[in-house]
Order: sequence, then C-alpha cells, then structure tokens
Amino acid sequence: MRTRSLLLAASAAILMSGGAKADEGMWTFDAFPRERMMAAYGWAPDQEWLDTVREGAVRLNGCSASFVSDNGLILTNHHCISSCLAAISNDDNDYLANGFNVATMEEEIVCPGQRADIVTSIADVTDEVKGAIAGLEGDEAVAAQRAITASLTGTDACTAEGYSCQVVSLYNGGQYSLYTYRRYDEVRIAWAPEAQAAQFGGDPDNFNFPRYSMDGAFLRAYENGEAAVTPNHLTWNPRSPQDGEITLVVGNPGSTQRLLTVAQLEYIRDVQLPRQIATLSELRGRLISAMDEDEERTREGNDTLGSIENSLKVQFGRQRALTNMDFFQTLIDAEEELKAEVAGNDEIGDPWTEIDEALDYARANNLRAVYDSPSGTLYGYAQTIVAANMEMAKPAEERDPGFGEATMGRIAAQLGQERTIHLWLDELLMEWSLSKAREYLGTDDPQTKTLLGDESPEGLSERLVRNTSLTDPAARVALLEGGLEALQASEDPMIQYALRLYPQVERIGDEFATNYSSKLTDPAARLADARFAAYGDSLYPDATFTLRINYGVVKSWEERGEMVPTTTTIAGTYDRATGNIPYDLPSQFIEKEDQIDKSTVYNFVSTNDIIGGNSGSPVLDRNGTVIGAAFDGNIYVTGGSFGYDAANNRMITVSTAALQEALEVIYPAPRIVAELAAD
Amino acid sequence: MRTRSLLLAASAAILMSGGAKADEGMWTFDAFPRERMMAAYGWAPDQEWLDTVREGAVRLNGCSASFVSDNGLILTNHHCISSCLAAISNDDNDYLANGFNVATMEEEIVCPGQRADIVTSIADVTDEVKGAIAGLEGDEAVAAQRAITASLTGTDACTAEGYSCQVVSLYNGGQYSLYTYRRYDEVRIAWAPEAQAAQFGGDPDNFNFPRYSMDGAFLRAYENGEAAVTPNHLTWNPRSPQDGEITLVVGNPGSTQRLLTVAQLEYIRDVQLPRQIATLSELRGRLISAMDEDEERTREGNDTLGSIENSLKVQFGRQRALTNMDFFQTLIDAEEELKAEVAGNDEIGDPWTEIDEALDYARANNLRAVYDSPSGTLYGYAQTIVAANMEMAKPAEERDPGFGEATMGRIAAQLGQERTIHLWLDELLMEWSLSKAREYLGTDDPQTKTLLGDESPEGLSERLVRNTSLTDPAARVALLEGGLEALQASEDPMIQYALRLYPQVERIGDEFATNYSSKLTDPAARLADARFAAYGDSLYPDATFTLRINYGVVKSWEERGEMVPTTTTIAGTYDRATGNIPYDLPSQFIEKEDQIDKSTVYNFVSTNDIIGGNSGSPVLDRNGTVIGAAFDGNIYVTGGSFGYDAANNRMITVSTAALQEALEVIYPAPRIVAELAAD
Repeated sequence: MRTRSLLLAASAAILMSGGAKADEGMWTFDAFPRERMMAAYGWAPDQEWLDTVREGAVRLNGCSASFVSDNGLILTNHHCISSCLAAISNDDNDYLANGFNVATMEEEIVCPGQRADIVTSIADVTDEVKGAIAGLEGDEAVAAQRAITASLTGTDACTAEGYSCQVVSLYNGGQYSLYTYRRYDEVRIAWAPEAQAAQFGGDPDNFNFPRYSMDGAFLRAYENGEAAVTPNHLTWNPRSPQDGEITLVVGNPGSTQRLLTVAQLEYIRDVQLPRQIATLSELRGRLISAMDEDEERTREGNDTLGSIENSLKVQFGRQRALTNMDFFQTLIDAEEELKAEVAGNDEIGDPWTEIDEALDYARANNLRAVYDSPSGTLYGYAQTIVAANMEMAKPAEERDPGFGEATMGRIAAQLGQERTIHLWLDELLMEWSLSKAREYLGTDDPQTKTLLGDESPEGLSERLVRNTSLTDPAARVALLEGGLEALQASEDPMIQYALRLYPQVERIGDEFATNYSSKLTDPAARLADARFAAYGDSLYPDATFTLRINYGVVKSWEERGEMVPTTTTIAGTYDRATGNIPYDLPSQFIEKEDQIDKSTVYNFVSTNDIIGGNSGSPVLDRNGTVIGAAFDGNIYVTGGSFGYDAANNRMITVSTAALQEALEVIYPAPRIVAELAAD
Repeated sequence: MRTRSLLLAASAAILMSGGAKADEGMWTFDAFPRERMMAAYGWAPDQEWLDTVREGAVRLNGCSASFVSDNGLILTNHHCISSCLAAISNDDNDYLANGFNVATMEEEIVCPGQRADIVTSIADVTDEVKGAIAGLEGDEAVAAQRAITASLTGTDACTAEGYSCQVVSLYNGGQYSLYTYRRYDEVRIAWAPEAQAAQFGGDPDNFNFPRYSMDGAFLRAYENGEAAVTPNHLTWNPRSPQDGEITLVVGNPGSTQRLLTVAQLEYIRDVQLPRQIATLSELRGRLISAMDEDEERTREGNDTLGSIENSLKVQFGRQRALTNMDFFQTLIDAEEELKAEVAGNDEIGDPWTEIDEALDYARANNLRAVYDSPSGTLYGYAQTIVAANMEMAKPAEERDPGFGEATMGRIAAQLGQERTIHLWLDELLMEWSLSKAREYLGTDDPQTKTLLGDESPEGLSERLVRNTSLTDPAARVALLEGGLEALQASEDPMIQYALRLYPQVERIGDEFATNYSSKLTDPAARLADARFAAYGDSLYPDATFTLRINYGVVKSWEERGEMVPTTTTIAGTYDRATGNIPYDLPSQFIEKEDQIDKSTVYNFVSTNDIIGGNSGSPVLDRNGTVIGAAFDGNIYVTGGSFGYDAANNRMITVSTAALQEALEVIYPAPRIVAELAAD
C-alpha cells in the first residue's frame, strides 16, 4: 500500500508533467522524509545533521540566509538587502551603485527594520489549537483562535528578551506547530557588490538561465551593539559544485497553493490574477516612465521597480500554469479521486462545498478588501498609528488579545527608525492605488466616495504626501504615543485621512474575517484530514514562510531540444555584455578584468523545489557545508505555486566560489575573507 | 421547424444569460430580418427605408457617421475625431481643450488621413471567390484569394475616380460580398465641443451609465476642394427619445467573435488576452507618468491614452466573459450540439480538428508575429516606404496582385499629408514595444537580436526617433519615390532600421499566411456551412467593419436590484461635477450655466447590439430621422465580442436634442444650426 499511497499523493499534490518527482517537497525539520531520500539517493541527513543546519539557518524579512562565522556574519542575496542599501544611501554614498565595502566592523551600517530569526524549537500544538476552536464559527472562531495563539506565544520562553514565537498553521489548518525563534532586532550591512553585478541582465534575465549574477551579500547580527556570538554557524566552502551532486536547500519558502481545491484555484485564476496582473503592469509602466531620464529617480525607484517586475513574472507563471488546460484537468481529476476516497466519511463531510460558499463571498466582495485603503509608506505609517491608538482606546476585553503596551513599544521602535522616503514614489504609489480603486469599485460606489471625497486620486495624493509630517521618525513616534484625542486633534492631513478611512478599514477587515477566512478554517482542516486519510503522512505542507528543507541534485534540463549547461563561469558575463543596460558590465568587472579568474563557476542550477522567500537560502552539500546562496529559479519555478515540475524545475544559485573571487579580487574585503576562513 | 431553428440558432450563436434575444444581430443591408422584427415589434423598415438610410450612412477611419445636410455635413462622435483635433492643434489653437468652432465654411480644416465611405451597392460574390480557391491550400490558396480579390475590385466601377471596392468575407468565409463605396478622400472638421464636455467622466465613466457626455462632432466631406453635394442625407431631428420607442442603429461594427470554435475562444482567453492586457496596462502606466505634471504632454498624449484605456476596458470585458465558467460551458454545449447535428455529413467533415491544427501553429508562433517590428508612427512610415519599394522592385509576376503605380500614388498621398508627430510619444511607444519584444521572446532569441542588435530598447528608440527625417512629409514622399537603390543608400536611421527588419517582417508574414490564416479559410467556411445546414439562414455574420443595421428599443436595465434610468439630462453634469479631473466642468458649461436648458435629455440607453466601430453611428427612429449618435455601451457590451446579453446589453447615445442645445447655446454655431434645419 505504501507505493500506491505515494503515487496517489503524487497525483494529488504534484501537478506538472514529466519523470520522477523524487525531489519535490518543502519539508519541515520535524518531518524530514529520510527514508524517501535514502531510497532515491542512498544517503540522507541524520538528526544531528539536521539540528546543526537548523541552528545556522536565518530568516530575514521576506528572505532566507545563514550564519557563516562566529561573529554573526550572515550570507544572503544582494536582492534581499537592496532596499536596505537604498535606504542608507545618500548623495555622498550610493551603496547600490558602488557596493558596500568598509574596512572595519565599526563602519557597518544598520539596515532599518531588518531582523534575523533562528528557529530554536518546534512543538506540535495541533491538539491545543483545534481543541480551542472546535465547534465554533465566524467571529467566535476568530476570537478563539486569536486567544489560543496569544496564550501559546505568551509564555515566558516566548516573551524572553531576544526570543519570539509563532503559531504556524500547516496543511491549511490540518496541523499547528509552535516555532520558537532566537530573534536579533539589529542587523547591519557588512558587504555588498555593485548592484550592476548582482542585477546584471536585469528583468530580462530574471527567472532565466544561463545566468551571470553576483547576487550575494553579507549582513551581521548584533546584540546590545556588539556582533552576535554565533558558534553554531554553517561552514563556508568556496568550491565549485559538481554535476549530479546532492544539494540541500534550507530556507523559508513563502507561499504555495498546492493543497487548494479546484474552486480556489479557479478563483485565483479568474478573479485575482487578472486584476493583479493588469494593475501591477500599469504600476510598472508608471514607475518606468517616472524614472526615465532622471538619474536620481532611477536610483531611488530601482528597487521598487525590481520588486514589481519580479512579482509580475511570478504572476505570469502562475497564470500560465492555471490556464494550461491539460494541467488543470489533472487537478480536477485528482480532486475527484480524493472525493471518491473519502466518500461516506462523516467526519470529513463535504469541505469542498463549504469552501465554495466562502468563495462566493470572496468573489462578490474581494474588491472591497483590496481597495479599503491606498498604498504608500506614509499612508502605512498613518494607518498603523491610527489603528494602534484605536485599539488602545478600547476597553481591555474588546481589544485584540495580545495587544498592549508591549505591542505599542514594538510599533514605536519600528516607527522611530530612520528611513529615506522618496516623496515622488510614495505619491506615485498612492495615486496609482486610488485610481485603481475608483476603476474597479466604480465612481459611484460609497467606498470610492470615502476614499476620494470630491478629490481626484492625483490631487489627494499630492496634498497628503506633500504636507504630512510622517517623513520624520520623531513625529511618527510622537503621534503614536500622544493618544487618540491628540491624534484626532492633529492637523497632519495623512493622519486625518487615515482616521477618515479607519471605520471602513476595520469594518471590511471584520467582515472578511467573519465571512471568509474563518469560514475556510474548518473545511480546510478537514480537507487536510481527508488527504491524510487517503494518502498517509507522506505529504508535506504548503509553504508558510517558515523553515523548510528540500533535497535535489545539480542537474541540467532540456530547452527547445538542447540540454542547458548546469553552470556558468564569470567569463560568460563578458561575452554577454553589450554595454547597454541591463547588459552593461559593472565598473569593477571592467577595471579588474585582468586579475579576475574568469574560469570561476558563477551560477549553477539544481532540481531543488523552492519558491519566493527561499532567496538567500544556503545551498549545502552532503557534508553540510555552504556551496552557494539560492537566488532565483528558471521560468518553470514560477508555476511552482501550484506544483513541482520535476523535468524542468531548476533552482539557480550563486556559488561560494564566485563570491570568494568577489571578496578576494573584485570587491576586496580581506576582513570578511579572514572571518569566513576562520574555524 | 422555423421556431426550433431560431431557438437553436440562439443557443449556438447567442451566448449570455437572460430573456428574449429579439434585438440581437448585426445584419447586413441585403439580409435584413424583416419578418423577425415585424414579429417582435409589429413594424419593420421596408426596402425603400433601408436604401435611403444606407445612402446617408458614412464610414470613417475606425468609426461610423452619417450625412445630415445637403452640403456633406457629417455627424459623428467627438472621440472619433479627437486625433484629428490633436493633429491640427498648435501653440495658438488647442482645439481639443477649446473645441473647434469657426464662423465660415472656408475656415474648416482638413483632418489628415480621414476618409468617408458610403456604400453604393452590395453584390454576392460567394461563388466567384469560393470557386477560385476551391481545392487549394497554403500559399496557393493565399495567392488565389489575392488574385480573385484583385480581379473583383479592379473593375472600372471599382477604380473610377471617387470609388472604391472591398471584398468582404462574411461568416468567416462562408459567404463573400463585394461592397462598392463612394469615397471622399478629403474630410474637414466643421464643429466640435470642448474635449472636457465630450470626455466628462473620462476613463472612470467610460462603459458606464448614467452618463453625461457631449460626444458629438461634425465633419464635412469635400470633393475637389468644394463641400460635397449630398442630397441623400439623413434628416436631423433634435428631439428627446421616448421610453420604449424603436431605435435603429446604422454603422460599422468592427469585429466580433461570435462564430468561433471553443478552441479559438480558448486561444483568445489563454494566449492573446493575458499578454495584451499585461502589455497594454504597462503602456497605459508609462503614458500616464510621462504626461504627469507636463501640460504640453498631457495635451499631446491624451488621445492616445484614451484609446489605450478604451481598448483595455474592452479586453477586461472580454476576459471576464471568457473566464465566466457558466457562460463558457454554454459555448461548449452549443458546439457539441452543432457537431451532433452535422455528424456524418461528409461535405462538412471535421473543421474543428483542422482549426485546432492551425491553432497549434499560432500557439507556438504567435509572439513572432506580434513582435516582428516595433510600434510608433515613424517606424510605421519607414516600414511602409521600405515594403512598397521592395514590392515594386520585384518582377511583376511575383508582386502582390493589385500592387502597382496606382498603389504607390495612394501611399504617396498618405505619406505626404502633414501630421503632427510628438517625438516623446513615438519614442515611448517604440521603447515599450521593443522592451516587450525582448521580454516575451527572450534576450537570446534570434528575432530579439535582429530587433535590438547590441542596443537597448531605450537607446535604440531614442537614436532612431531623434535622428530620422520622416517627420517631414516631403522627405517621406521623396524616400518613397526615390526607388530601392536610393533607399538603401539613405542615411536615415529609421529607414536603415526598417531595411534591416524587412526580411524578418516579410518572412513571418508569409509563414503566418501559409500556416495559419490560409489554414483557417476552408474549415471556417465549412463551419459556416454546418451552421447554415443546422440552423438555416436566420444567422447574421460576425462584425467586419462593414455596414450593418440593428434594431432595439429605448429601455432600462436592472443593476444591483435597481432599474437604471434610460436618460440623463444636462443638469446631471452639474450634480456630478467635483471640480477635479475628470469630473471638472467644461469652461462653457460654467460660463453659460444660466442660459443652458438643463432639462434637455443628454444621453440615453437602448437595447441595440453594437461593438467598437459603431461609434458615431446615427441612431434612427422608425421614421428614419436621426435622434442621436451612438458613442458607447454599458459595461456588458464589452463582452459583446462573444455574445449579446439581452437582459443587460445597452448602447449609449448622445441625443440630437443635447447637440442642438450645444450648437445653439453652449458652443453657438448658427451656420451649422441653419444647415441642419434646412431640409
């Protein structure tokens, strides 16, 4: 039965064409499929290997990383810290254009808002959570889940200085785990190459291979102003990868939808993706033109544009996967099969129909939630300040469980961080989002009228962005801490605007929690039960931006009839360079051309199953040493939201060999070289 | 059997939900469904009525219109002539902002490139065309169809001064008609309101109702420099419409896809629309930002932006219709039914599978055709000049049938027309299209390399647009007429670029004609035969931008549980005005507020079945008098490509009553008022 179970699991959870699916799966550290990997490769990591690696794995804001020295040095991707580089750049120092390379540790600069989390333990809390919400619906279920979450994360172990906890819902609520993290709230930038070296090929080369990208950078975790002490770091190993060798990738895949129902995927395909792609494409165009022929704006907007283009490429891939009729039919068939497997099982019932009903609500109301408020950093500050004060003004029993003085302190610390805000960009984002709100909701809709009043998206955005004091960290903190009455009396137009929108934002949030999210909880959990009943525990949960491990091998794939090489060398950069953006050589590649060892392996591909959030993940060999940092996938990975395509899915990694060449020759940083070599 | 035929025709050709479909259909003037309309409304136009109306109906470039005086005066929409107003505007006269209103006929200004066509006869040439291509495939079929077309349109009647002929393929090649036109090559602008009056509500109000738009304008046809003599004009009737009264709309619906196979609709839904929507949305954004805070560019780019936003809204509607699973299932069912009806009919065979095979080619190669060359007016000139010279340089027997000195003369006349070109806009369009070519084809694709060489989309576009001489009409004509050798020796960079692309453009065009278009001809015609066999001749052909007539009634529809009023009045404009773009009052609406009769019916809706191309169509009452000019539909009309939604589909018309108020009070033009009043 074991084989058949695996096979069925494959047809239920694995979605795309071709060959063996042996390398699929984003496994949790407490459920690594050791036997499965042994069967495939004759080797698999043991518990000690896994524990060691877990202790060296780091989660950043939206990215993955690893400790690679005793002194808190963190390896990640350049694109994970480019917003930091933009934020700390000024007229004298353009760290994006020139890279970041300082002679001493004292010169390292704080990345505003960046945190580093290391998993210290994982506990199964399924019984506690399911027990707390059993039999409840709607508001009551929401409240009960918030309460049990607050209770589980409110223990001494979780609230100790430098620690944090998270209740993670796995299998769409089929299982719950409590993750405890060692948290570093201060992270500084230690080294980065020129952006042009990391971004060579730009958007055209993104999600493509062959590839020539120095997409690596080093951060450092700090504790009380000193470099963190991190003896349990991973070992830096600046060697070339070998064809066919096993690669293990350890990181935080952000989000997949491999366990959704067909109706949920149709909702994504027919409702969400068309609007997201159209509106993000327009934003992309607005930004491209706004930056055009303006050097300062080009520098300031480059990171945002890169994020938008990256998101769009992912969405194009998702759309293409879901509009592939052959592929979609396999999903329909798998769902029918699962329904047949659990037919008559009363405990499972009919979760599909219940989910359909929740989707009916979402179809009719999703635009309300999307357009309850505008985009933009400054408006975001205002909404945070208003919402926090509104919450604090409530009687304690009506307040969100867990919301209190400590929360206010954390919010104050975040708002108080210095951050460069480009007014033109914030205005552009706000104007775009408000004009899309009017387009999708309609001019005559009451929600549009609340958003715009008698103003135009252009006029309103300009008025608010140009006249708010929220660009000043001290002003933000003062407004947060002044209390609700002072806030209501404030003349800051952005605060007044957030106050005007607050009832709408809160009402829509509540309505969605009651009529949609909470309606999905129970049927999604029973769907997970159905899968466990039908296919055993050989399943892995959808990605949740929590720590996972996946195994694969360095391996080519076939493209238009030809095998793609598994590796590129630095020499290829020079062949590909046209001298024109985005194929212009970085200045140090020109200057140091004679010294650079061009035969160094630059980027390489492997079969690992990853998704956004894995960026910066250490790529390990079977000895557990770091041979690269994952930074991208080929185009087939964009469909990975919905399934793993064993034949074509390839992760792209920048090799430690190339980063070593950068540290030694191209952007010399002897102190980092020495630090990596120590131990 | 008659009833059943109609009913089946309805399920096969009529696609959306709700009520009677009595008003559906874009009928040709030689096949008006008189009995059907009599049965529905107890009245229908007779042949004399139809002939009279046909003689007064005018086709413009991409729009519809009508003669409304003895002196060639033409009623159409403002949005049909806004590009003309932009082209003839200059620093002293901004005819878009201020409107166009001159005291004498002598001051009317030529609209560059604008033509006016009036159908003088329609002949069935199905036997001739089908006979010529019978049994042929691929290149031979293409050549044979070109030859018979050249022969049919090369008669004395067709080539006489001021005449032109067109072979129209109806029912996707099931039937062919020869349309003969009286053609006026010179058309001048006679009167237009402020753009803000026509565009009040802008993109947010487009495809919506209630609506407040003065979307009307007058042109005049000229012959040898004198106003054309047009005694067979329609009668201007500036009265308000009555609820429930019959409205007939006469114009040129551009394109519908109501007879396509399910596979063809899937191709549109899954391949064409996603790319078109993403890339056009980006272009929209690029243009919005490029125009932002630059008054001159706002004026110069406004018309292009309006076209893009209008196209996008249509495409959103098409996408929504095709991703509506209930709706799509009705299409699948109808196709299955038709297949069953004609099963075993050897003459019909299996056109569906043949079409699938042609679609396989299109799926694999469509990006080649989309991105064979860049966008932009200046590149368009260069390609026209190069292609014409290449064609002329061929031996006569290899040349396109019908291509000769006369064609060269027509091209020279077009190229020689003065036209304002905004370099920033042309550069923006070119840069956008080249960057999308690289994105969709890939950096390493040979076609991309031909397009870009070592240049970037930005650098190449700037170099070509800023250094070409093609902004000068005389230079264009000289290059056209200089012959191929002179062209090849030219130092104009845009010409050199078009020469570089020419082999690619020609090869891709040929490959598509051979492997796609010509492969569809025969099966599509047999599909039409199948429909005729199953459902009789109660069908109407898909729209082809040729003259059609449709009947309907002034009628409300239900929106979110409430009936929408059928009419608006000018007073509503003042209520809706916020003072901010696009809801700012036109200056003359402010200045003349006291004089304007605000109770005048402004816009109204009726059930007529229309599509893009119908803009400017005269809306006639049963007496054949003009009571308005159709200018838009409500949002349900955007799905009209694929079917007519009887319950919700509404055409939107600007009433002659409102235009009369404009001519008398708001933008006084006594000479036009007098001309309209004279019989």
